[in-house]
Amino acid sequence: MKKYQKKIFPVEKVRRFLEPGPTILVTSAYQGATNIMTMGWYTILEFSPSLIGCFIWEQDHSFEMIKKSKECVINVPTVELAETVVAIGNTTGKKIDKFAQFGLTAVNGKKVAAPLIQECYASFECKLVDAKLIKKYSLFIFKVVAAHAAVSPKYPTTIHYRGDGQFMVAGKNLNMRKNFKPQNL
Amino acid sequence: MKKYQKKIFPVEKVRRFLEPGPTILVTSAYQGATNIMTMGWYTILEFSPSLIGCFIWEQDHSFEMIKKSKECVINVPTVELAETVVAIGNTTGKKIDKFAQFGLTAVNGKKVAAPLIQECYASFECKLVDAKLIKKYSLFIFKVVAAHAAVSPKYPTTIHYRGDGQFMVAGKNLNMRKNFKPQNL
Repeated sequence: MKKYQKKIFPVEKVRRFLEPGPTILVTSAYQGATNIMTMGWYTILEFSPSLIGCFIWEQDHSFEMIKKSKECVINVPTVELAETVVAIGNTTGKKIDKFAQFGLTAVNGKKVAAPLIQECYASFECKLVDAKLIKKYSLFIFKVVAAHAAVSPKYPTTIHYRGDGQFMVAGKNLNMRKNFKPQNL
Repeated sequence: MKKYQKKIFPVEKVRRFLEPGPTILVTSAYQGATNIMTMGWYTILEFSPSLIGCFIWEQDHSFEMIKKSKECVINVPTVELAETVVAIGNTTGKKIDKFAQFGLTAVNGKKVAAPLIQECYASFECKLVDAKLIKKYSLFIFKVVAAHAAVSPKYPTTIHYRGDGQFMVAGKNLNMRKNFKPQNL
């Protein structure tokens, strides 16, 4: 599998990879074990600090690991990992080590214990900064504290889940820069 | 401009159009005026009831209109509307009637006063069901109370904002249905 060489990326710009809405892989670490979950329900909430709201179902094994460790890493996979993304969603970390099972490479982060996935285009290290919305909405508010992204290709060919087993694969780029007011870019 | 013929669509399935992460147009109505805003920061929060969390900046003209009317419509534009989507983001409803200015057709909804945009592929009528997160996170929790979607083409060619004036245009469909556990579809 392709391993992306990543560089440090500005945390206030992670929206460039998340606002398009790709399916992401969220890694966690707690008491010596790691886990990976597939996630599709999240939103940017602020640039600076770099805040992201993520829905994590309480029945997911990652729910308790992230709630207790107060950390995670958001990883952005590309289309080459589509089968792995689905397989990760089909299995539970209660029973298997997903890194070993799916041949993924865990890389140490700078600020959190949860591992980065080397085969993903970008990885964002996150700290849980607000747990008050978990009970009512399963919504975790994370702050991105370090970000890593590949520089080639310029735009990752991400996958976007439509439900019903169908993904949309990221298509061509449309440059509308000239149409924007400079202050809105 | 293309006008989509929409049919009633199940509210618990609107994730099919929103989870891929398209840039959306949010319409509102208050005291005889209507408005349209461009939105990129939102997430599905539940299937049934059909809940969506949307970030609306307090400086947007739509902020007060939606907070006071407690309603909006989420419209899903396709790539033909890309210039209009940017122009809507560049302008404010304080000064112009965006439907008139941009040649869009307002259609009456079934359950809310905010208008549907006929030139969009899908439109979801929403009621504000929780205003408690607005102050801290500018996050409005909406319940979809009626949904309308075109049936052709099967998948809309949506646009997905990357920041910096760049959009990703929705690409091909990847059918992974056979890889999913039936209960995860």
